[in-house]
Order: sequence, then structure tokens, then C-alpha cells
Amino acid sequence: MTTVGIVMGSDSDWPVMRLAAEALAEFGVEFEADVVSAHRMPEEMIAYGAQAAGRGLKVIIAGAGGAAHLPGMLASVTPLPVIGVPVPLKYLDGMDSLLSIVQMPAGVPVATVAVGGARNAGLLAVRILAAADEDLRARMVEFQASLKEQAHAKGAKLRAEAAQLGG
Amino acid sequence: MTTVGIVMGSDSDWPVMRLAAEALAEFGVEFEADVVSAHRMPEEMIAYGAQAAGRGLKVIIAGAGGAAHLPGMLASVTPLPVIGVPVPLKYLDGMDSLLSIVQMPAGVPVATVAVGGARNAGLLAVRILAAADEDLRARMVEFQASLKEQAHAKGAKLRAEAAQLGG
Amino acid sequence: MTTVGIVMGSDSDWPVMRLAAEALAEFGVEFEADVVSAHRMPEEMIAYGAQAAGRGLKVIIAGAGGAAHLPGMLASVTPLPVIGVPVPLKYLDGMDSLLSIVQMPAGVPVATVAVGGARNAGLLAVRILAAADEDLRARMVEFQASLKEQAHAKGAKLRAEAAQLGG
Amino acid sequence: MTTVGIVMGSDSDWPVMRLAAEALAEFGVEFEADVVSAHRMPEEMIAYGAQAAGRGLKVIIAGAGGAAHLPGMLASVTPLPVIGVPVPLKYLDGMDSLLSIVQMPAGVPVATVAVGGARNAGLLAVRILAAADEDLRARMVEFQASLKEQAHAKGAKLRAEAAQLGG
Amino acid sequence: MTTVGIVMGSDSDWPVMRLAAEALAEFGVEFEADVVSAHRMPEEMIAYGAQAAGRGLKVIIAGAGGAAHLPGMLASVTPLPVIGVPVPLKYLDGMDSLLSIVQMPAGVPVATVAVGGARNAGLLAVRILAAADEDLRARMVEFQASLKEQAHAKGAKLRAEAAQLGG
Amino acid sequence: MTTVGIVMGSDSDWPVMRLAAEALAEFGVEFEADVVSAHRMPEEMIAYGAQAAGRGLKVIIAGAGGAAHLPGMLASVTPLPVIGVPVPLKYLDGMDSLLSIVQMPAGVPVATVAVGGARNAGLLAVRILAAADEDLRARMVEFQASLKEQAHAKGAKLRAEAAQLGG
Amino acid sequence: MTTVGIVMGSDSDWPVMRLAAEALAEFGVEFEADVVSAHRMPEEMIAYGAQAAGRGLKVIIAGAGGAAHLPGMLASVTPLPVIGVPVPLKYLDGMDSLLSIVQMPAGVPVATVAVGGARNAGLLAVRILAAADEDLRARMVEFQASLKEQAHAKGAKLRAEAAQLGG
Amino acid sequence: MTTVGIVMGSDSDWPVMRLAAEALAEFGVEFEADVVSAHRMPEEMIAYGAQAAGRGLKVIIAGAGGAAHLPGMLASVTPLPVIGVPVPLKYLDGMDSLLSIVQMPAGVPVATVAVGGARNAGLLAVRILAAADEDLRARMVEFQASLKEQAHAKGAKLRAEAAQLGG
Repeated sequence: MTTVGIVMGSDSDWPVMRLAAEALAEFGVEFEADVVSAHRMPEEMIAYGAQAAGRGLKVIIAGAGGAAHLPGMLASVTPLPVIGVPVPLKYLDGMDSLLSIVQMPAGVPVATVAVGGARNAGLLAVRILAAADEDLRARMVEFQASLKEQAHAKGAKLRAEAAQLGG
Repeated sequence: MTTVGIVMGSDSDWPVMRLAAEALAEFGVEFEADVVSAHRMPEEMIAYGAQAAGRGLKVIIAGAGGAAHLPGMLASVTPLPVIGVPVPLKYLDGMDSLLSIVQMPAGVPVATVAVGGARNAGLLAVRILAAADEDLRARMVEFQASLKEQAHAKGAKLRAEAAQLGG
Repeated sequence: MTTVGIVMGSDSDWPVMRLAAEALAEFGVEFEADVVSAHRMPEEMIAYGAQAAGRGLKVIIAGAGGAAHLPGMLASVTPLPVIGVPVPLKYLDGMDSLLSIVQMPAGVPVATVAVGGARNAGLLAVRILAAADEDLRARMVEFQASLKEQAHAKGAKLRAEAAQLGG
Repeated sequence: MTTVGIVMGSDSDWPVMRLAAEALAEFGVEFEADVVSAHRMPEEMIAYGAQAAGRGLKVIIAGAGGAAHLPGMLASVTPLPVIGVPVPLKYLDGMDSLLSIVQMPAGVPVATVAVGGARNAGLLAVRILAAADEDLRARMVEFQASLKEQAHAKGAKLRAEAAQLGG
Repeated sequence: MTTVGIVMGSDSDWPVMRLAAEALAEFGVEFEADVVSAHRMPEEMIAYGAQAAGRGLKVIIAGAGGAAHLPGMLASVTPLPVIGVPVPLKYLDGMDSLLSIVQMPAGVPVATVAVGGARNAGLLAVRILAAADEDLRARMVEFQASLKEQAHAKGAKLRAEAAQLGG
Repeated sequence: MTTVGIVMGSDSDWPVMRLAAEALAEFGVEFEADVVSAHRMPEEMIAYGAQAAGRGLKVIIAGAGGAAHLPGMLASVTPLPVIGVPVPLKYLDGMDSLLSIVQMPAGVPVATVAVGGARNAGLLAVRILAAADEDLRARMVEFQASLKEQAHAKGAKLRAEAAQLGG
Repeated sequence: MTTVGIVMGSDSDWPVMRLAAEALAEFGVEFEADVVSAHRMPEEMIAYGAQAAGRGLKVIIAGAGGAAHLPGMLASVTPLPVIGVPVPLKYLDGMDSLLSIVQMPAGVPVATVAVGGARNAGLLAVRILAAADEDLRARMVEFQASLKEQAHAKGAKLRAEAAQLGG
Repeated sequence: MTTVGIVMGSDSDWPVMRLAAEALAEFGVEFEADVVSAHRMPEEMIAYGAQAAGRGLKVIIAGAGGAAHLPGMLASVTPLPVIGVPVPLKYLDGMDSLLSIVQMPAGVPVATVAVGGARNAGLLAVRILAAADEDLRARMVEFQASLKEQAHAKGAKLRAEAAQLGG
């Protein structure tokens, strides 16, 4: 069953946002991905948010750049947790995207991740779903263990490289 | 006839936004003012924007703070010019409000004024209306002349004060 | 059963963080609150995070200011979703707190809310819990409806006030 | 009849500013484009602004970068609405351009668009002209509908692409 | 003979700008002070700059806040050195004032001092005049010696105070 | 023996810098404190740095605000470790002080602490001295243990307070 | 006679700083250029500043990047006007350079130009020298006229280009 | 004996951090280098810090980017001086890294160097070790003398180059 909706204002956000999709795929979480633009199709955007819970979605991941209104607007029409991904544009390094997603007024939260941090949006969705799914949580614990192993492996390689400097 | 709609996300924005209303009143432009929250009443907000032109409004002035979505969302559902006022909140001096209003994607413009610059939003609305109203334009020209006179008067006072320092 | 842990680096963060607690209390969600300092009691902090899921917690809310390491460090030792609240300090308006919470590296997400946005942290926790609790979700829908009603009431008051200006 | 004047401080701004011209051309709005430098030809700049309304212009679009004074100076000598485009320079990503255009003092508004947002400047001019031109407004409504269609088309493409990831 | 003109956009800048006047008075440099607003009296502002050298002024000090155009505009119409003082407004701590004064395009320099740094503007004018006035330069050297003496005196007081802490 | 020199550009920095002195006093480290201004007594400042090691100092703590040159200049004339404290001024929240202290070019390091973080400058000096003083290091370990105890005590108080909210 | 000294912290600043030299050469002003590093040769730097006036220099132009101390330190040891050029480094776009040059404390001014604005530093030096040199001032007036002519020529070219778009 | 530990969150930081290693190697200081990730191996990170002093390390150099928690976390579990290197990531030019390293709360200092300033981290470690090692300090004095010589050599080259411009 599709439990996560990944939406973005334009397909130009996809190179960033597909990292969220890949993270979900790694955990076997079913998702849908679509263009849902707050500024170009506002009524459909409202409808997407309003129907999300009824369609069985549990989490929405929304990416947008610049004056990034999509995550906050979706959060205003759904009771589901909405994860916002600040997509960096050509100028300002995503600082505009970040502030227009994270600085939501009291009452309507958006769970914001790092500038360009779509992979973490996917992983956060997994953690949220895992709150009620012990099997998924066990896989998250395994994933965290694998991060540790990779870091150890990198350390071994680095120690060898540093040794050549006299370290 | 009411030609300008002044809307804001919360009545806490009114102390800033009333300066827009006062500017319009000075020029005899009829306006309405209302709370239209993008995040707390999104469907009504969409409806407000979608019906604005049909109701005879010519310009919308929208103020919001933080992750300020109201001006951009209204601009997405109306063909009218929308003027955005970045309302400063307790932290960040309105930089978040400014960026989330001004950095709109290509296709959907918002005419943004200074942080807290609601008076200029009112004056900009007058200029827009005056594009098709010679009488109103004449009053804007008079207004600009009065600014000059006031500046001259301030100069006279300042010269006197500076003279005491030896200037 | 206690399902949300609210932790902060110092009791001086409590005036901000209690807004998270109040939001949870409004929804009848049981929580615990404690001082868990990443910098002053790092081992206990690690233990808190490592044991959180086993103790039955479903979500952790962590507030911190300046070089704010608590949310990210907890996220590294628990598979639970961690919500980070950037607490503003005396200087820099919380921009340091925000960046050191939200800019987590790929692999370890923190769900970040606005500077000082602890109430939204509480509401986000409710949304996360509601993903697996239909009753709670229904209450969130009601809450969102009440926000709308309050906004309407504010609008009525504002329209009256604006009318005095000729609006 | 030429109704929009597009001016900029230097021809090096043209690659950005031509997007405003193209938007106007799409709507069949006649415009002129010229180099009018606040800093290199101040008297001519003042004259340009002072004569604009008399020559039949309805809107001025002014682009400038760095210490960007052109939009504000023109706004001080014309009663017409002036749209400012912050042109980004080599350093600071246009933040200097943005602030020196948008932060105008009370009395003299500039309708500011995004950093590099010249296309939106053109579209905003169309909206302003359309306030008194029903035909033009109808075309803006059509344009907004076409944005929606394009977004839908992008969505279809994206859904296909995402399906390959298992979405 | 009046050799320095101190101008500002509004008399509200005087509390900051009078520090420039006081510095000049300390050195016996004759000055004039006036309100010359780029935005409210642009033609007079241009005239002020264009006539400054002919009237015998050697240096212009111009203070302005927000979208601060006065120093740069004056520099464009006079061959005299223009010193710009970024006056801080209510929001943004003068960062907008600073950038819109200092970031002038190649060809038209403004000698910019610190945010609110009007005293240094006065002292810089003295240094500029002293380039061709040996007596004035000697007084600047004396002034710098007096700064040193004051710093020494403060050091003595501080050492005493620190000694109470065990230092 | 005096092993730490605490210097600052002006006695107005003392309310911030005395926190460094107090930290040293807590650890029984002897220090001196003085006004040594890079800008008002540059030769003496150079002499202070050049003689510091010969006089037996082991560490220099230097505080300065705005265009803060003192820490970096001292580091250029002494081989001792120099700790820089960015003192916040009236505007810009110490961001100018921070950047002009921390962004030193390769070759001449300054150990920078937080904006206004003079207490940490004192503690860092203790850690540096403790690198060659086992007794002092033991006291630093004790100090860190006391931080933990205080945090525990605060936690107990907070838990009680939170319990009243239903937590 | 050499009247302007151009100094910089490293020869890596020369590609930026040579624009100052070229501007001076265009006006026939004799200059010297040298590496005078505040951090790598502090005593020589102090000596350079202290001897500058005696050697006949009238103006010093100093460029530096990052924690840019050279302009301010020179200003503290000379009564001459010092022009500071913020040289941008690899990160932060010169914001660190700008703030550490412009934010000088009261008593010691630095005439700061734009990030990377070395050409304007040269032109500012010419204006300063011209305060006591009518011939030089006349050439500055001519130069300003040539800027205007160039802008006119660019305008002609632009009008032709815009005409192809229908403008 | 290994006296300095160089650690970083990922081997992708090595191209920056190896400059610290090279500086130590130039001074004959023995070091180790390793991947110690705060977020991917938190328990090992805590252990690394807790055991560092006992293993004979005198200084820890820690580099990290984004929400950079490694330096501060290590400082919380060791009494040794910890030097933090803000590693710049793809966006925000290292401002996030800088603030999340330098803005540590009172009690737990991190000696922060410039964005990407790993070479200075190495040199700062040498200065710290030299506080108790006269031989090492003598080499630091020699090193500083060599910086001066290099600057002189660059000056000679620059003077020649500038002479071609007429300087």
C-alpha cells in the first residue's frame, strides 16, 4: 500500500527529490511521486492535501525552492505529518527555501530537513512509519548499524592514507 | 466601490497593516480589510483570491510574517496584482518574511515592499489604480510634492540645530 | 503511557519548550520532560536516546540553542523520529540554533521546526502519533477546524476595526 | 502604444532583463528598453522618470545590481508604479541588490520581484495594465491556466520516472 | 569657509549624523548640515551634488538608511569624495543600509564607514582635508595620540578592577 | 606566576571579558588584565604580543568587537596560542566581530570562541595549560563532573515543573 | 611624485588590486604597490603606515580578505586617509572581508569600497587628491562625462537589440 | 609519541583536514588521523574523546560540516583542548558549519578556526604543545620568520609587476 506521497513544485526538483524516493525504496516503503505545484495548480494542491489521509497516505514529503509554499500549504489541509525539503535554487544557496519552509506559524508544523536533504526526508518518513511498525523500526536500527560499519571502513582507509604523511 | 482588498494572516499583523489602510484612506480609495489565513483557512483563502477580480477588486495587499505564504498563494489564484508586505516577527527581523514573499517562481509575481512597509503597499496600490485614473495620478503627484515640502521644512529645522554645533 | 519525551539542554530552555508540553497536554498525549544535556552529560544523553524506543517512547522532542547538538545526537542513537526546536539565544536570533539542528548529514534526519517553535514541535508529535491512531487524527482535524474558527472570529473583529478607517 | 519602459543600469543586465521583455511580448504589450544609469547619467535618469507618465508609459520596470538605486530613484520622480528587479552580481548572490531595491522608505514604493526575477517583472506589469483592461486580464487568466497544464504534463512525466524506482 | 557638507535623507537621521558634525567641530572644520532626500526631493539632491564643488565644498558626508541611495547618487553628480554613513533602521541592523551604500558599481565610489559610524565619517573628512593641510594633519596626529592616552588611562583603571578578581 | 594575559580593546569590553577572568580565578590560574587596543595603541599592542612569551605568559585571551583586529594581530607577533572572544556591539549581533576574528589566513591561527563567550575563553586557557599540568587537568575533569551534577539537579526541578502540566 | 600607496596582504590579492593601480594610471597619478602583510610582517606593516605621510604619500589603498586587518591597522598608525578594499576569498563571498574592514571603532576610520571594488578605490583616491588639485578634479569631471557617453552608447545598442523582441 | 588526534566525520573531509596533518608533520609533531563520526558512530566517538587524554593525546583536532557536532561533543567528554575546523559543504559556504562549531554554551569550549582552515588548526595545535615545549616554540618563531620572508619575496615580485603599470 502506498503510504508516502512525494510531491514537488516542478520536475526540475526531481534530481534532488529522487533521493527521498530511493531511501524509501531501500526500506521497501511504497510511495507515489508527483508534481503538485502550490503556485501553478493551487486547487489541485489543496485537493491533494485534503484527500491524502483518506487515500491511506501516512506521510507527505514536499520539496520546493525559493518562496517555497508547498510544504506549509499541504500541512494546512492535512492532519498528516508533512516533511519539507528546501530545494536550493541558483541564488541564495537555499536560504530562502529553508526559511520559507521552516518558519511556519504556531498551529501548522512542517518537519523540515536540510537544504537539499531529500534523502533524510525519506529516512524521516521511515522513522515516522516505524513508530507503529516494529519490523520497520528493526530495519532502521540495522540501517544505523550499517552507517557505523561504513564509517569504520572509511576510518581504516583514512588511517592508511594519513600514515603516509607521518601520522 | 471597494477596489483594494487588504488581507493578513492574523489580526496580530494589523498594527503593521493598518498603515496600508491609512494610506488608501488618505487618497480616498475604498478598501476592505480582513483576516484571510493561508494556513488556518486555506480553502477560504483560495476562494478569496479566486473571487477577488469578479467582486471588482483591482489590487490585493497581503501581509504575512515568517513562512509567509499568503501573498504568493493569492497571486496564484487571481490575475490581479498582489502586493506583499513582509511582517517582521519576534526573531530574524523579517528576513524570513521577506524571502518567502519576494522569491516567487517565474510565472506568479508578487509586488514586494520593505519589511514592515505597509504604508508603501498602500501607496503602490494607489499608483497601480492611478495608471487608469488621471485624477488619482494627479493626487499622487501632489502627494509627492508634499513629501518634498515636508523634507524642506525638516531641512530648515536641521540647519538651525546644526548651527548650534558650529555648522 | 508516556509516548513523547521532551528534552532540552538546560532548564533555561523551559520557557520556550513548555509550549511543546502544553500542546501535547491539549491532545491528551502523555509526555515526560527532562534536562538531557549533550554537552554536560553526554553519556546520559546517549543512554537516553538509546533506551527511548525500548521504554515505549514513540517520538522525541529536543530543544537546544547556539551550537545545538542535542537533537542531532539523539537522532544518531535512536530509530525514533526526533523533532528539533531551535531555541534562540541572546545573539543571532536563533540562526545558529536553526542551522546546527536542521543541516544534518544524510543518514540521520532531524525534523526541524521554526526558531522558538516549540508549540509546533508538540503538534508535529501529535501528527506523527496520529499516523497510527485514528482517534488522535480525528482530534487533529478538529483542532485544525478550531484554528479556522478562531481566524474567522479575528476577521470579524478586524473588519469592524478597519471600518473605522473608512475601509 | 508603448506602455511599459524597461530600463537598466548597464547592458550587462540585459541577459537578465530581456526575460521581462519577452513576457511582455508574449502578451502583446508594447514596450521600450533602454540603458538608463542612475550613477552614470543621473540627470537623464531623472528626466526619464519625470517624463514617463507624460509620454504615455503606464509602468516602469527597472533592473539594477549591487547598490541598486535605479528603481527607487525612478519611483521618486514618477507617479507611475515602478517594478524593481534585483540583478545578481558576481558576489553576494543578489542580496545587496534585493535589499537596496526593496527597503525603500515610506512614501516611495518600489514593487520588488525575486533576485533575477525579470520574467515576473514583465508578468506583474501585465497584471497592473490588466487592472484596467479586461481583455488583457482574460489573457492573464489563460496564461495561468497554461501554467497549470504544463505542471500537469510535468507530473505525468515524473510519475512515470518515479515508477521505475518502485514508486 | 565651509568645506564639508553633511546631508541626510531625514531629520530622524540627525541623532546619528550629529556625531559627524561634532567631530568636525572638534577639529575646527566648518561644515553645513541639511536634509537632502534622494527620494523626496531628487532634483534638489542632484542640484546639491552638482553645485557642491563650485560652492567650495571639499567633501560630502551623506547618511541614509534602508535602501540608502543618497551617498551613491551624490557621488554620481560630484567629483568630490563622498563619505557614506549607513544609518541603521528598526529592522535588519543596518545591513540593508550598509550594502546599498558600499556596493557601488565601478566608476562611482562611495567611501563607506561602519553602520552608525558617523563620528568616523567626520574624522575621515578631516583626514581627507588634511591631505592638503599640514596643520590639520598635525592635529589629527595629536588626536591619535590622545586616543592612545585615553586607552592607557582605561587600562590603568581596568588593571585595578581586575586585581580584585585575583588577576 | 601570571600565565594568562587577558586583553581587550576598551574597558567597555570588560563586562563581557571579566567572565574569562572569573573562570581562570576559579581554577587558581593567575592572570593579568589590561586594555591593549590594536587601533588606539598599535605599537604597544605589538610590543605586548612580542614580549608575552618572554614574560612567562603561556596563553593570551583577546576580546574585541566590530572590525576586531586585536586577537589576530597579537597572534601575528607571538608564538603563544591566542584565544579570540568576539564581543557583540550594538548592531549586527557580533557577526562582524566573529568573522573578523575567526577568518584568519593560513599561517596565523586564532582560537575563536562564541560571540560573547568569554567564560569559555577562560576555560579553554585552562585546558591548554592543563595539557602540561596533570593537577590542573584533574581539576578540569572535576569541573566537568560538576557541570553534569548541576544539569542533573536542573533536570529534577524541571521534571517536577513539567509534572504540573500533566507530563 | 608617488602620492598613493597600494598595499595588500599577499600577491594573490593582486588580480583584484591591480584595478586600483590601473585607475590611478589612467589619471596619471603616481603610485607604488607592495605586499605589506598585517599578519606575516606586522612590524613592517606598522612602519609602512607610520612613515607613509613623511614619505609624501597622500592616500593609502589597502586590500585584504577574510579577517582583513590591514586597512584598519594602517589607519591606526597614519593620519592619512586609508581606503579599504574587501577582497573576496573562496568562501562567504567577501562578507567577512567587508565587515572586518568597514566596522571600525569610533576614532579610526577606513574608507571602504565594495567587495572586490578596487577600481573604485583608485577612483576614490583620485577624488581625494583632487580636493586640492583643480586640474585633477577637472579630469574627474571629464571621466564622469565619459561614463555617461559610454552608457549612452550601450543604450543605443540595447534599443536595437530590444527592438528585435518587439520592444 | 602521538600527541595530536585528527578526526573527522567522514573521509570526504580529508582533502580539507589533511592540511592540519601536513602542518603537524612540518613541525615533527606525531599525530593520528581517523574517521570518528558523531552521527554514525556516537558511542565510539564518546569513547574516543573519553580515552584521548589517557592515551597520551594532548590536543584533538576535529573537522565537520553542516550541523557539525563532532568538535563540541568531543570537548564535552575530554578535558583536552579541542580545535574545531568548519568544513564547508556544497551550500551555505560553511556558515552552518562555523556556527554549529563556534557557538558552544558556557562550560564546554571549542577552539574554532576559519571555514576550511585546517592548516591553522594544525598550527594552533603546535602553539598549544609549544606552551610546554621550548624547542617547539622556537620552531614556531622560526616558522613565523619564514612567513615574513615569503611575504617580502612576494612583495619584490609584486613591485616589479606593478612597475609595468607605471607604479
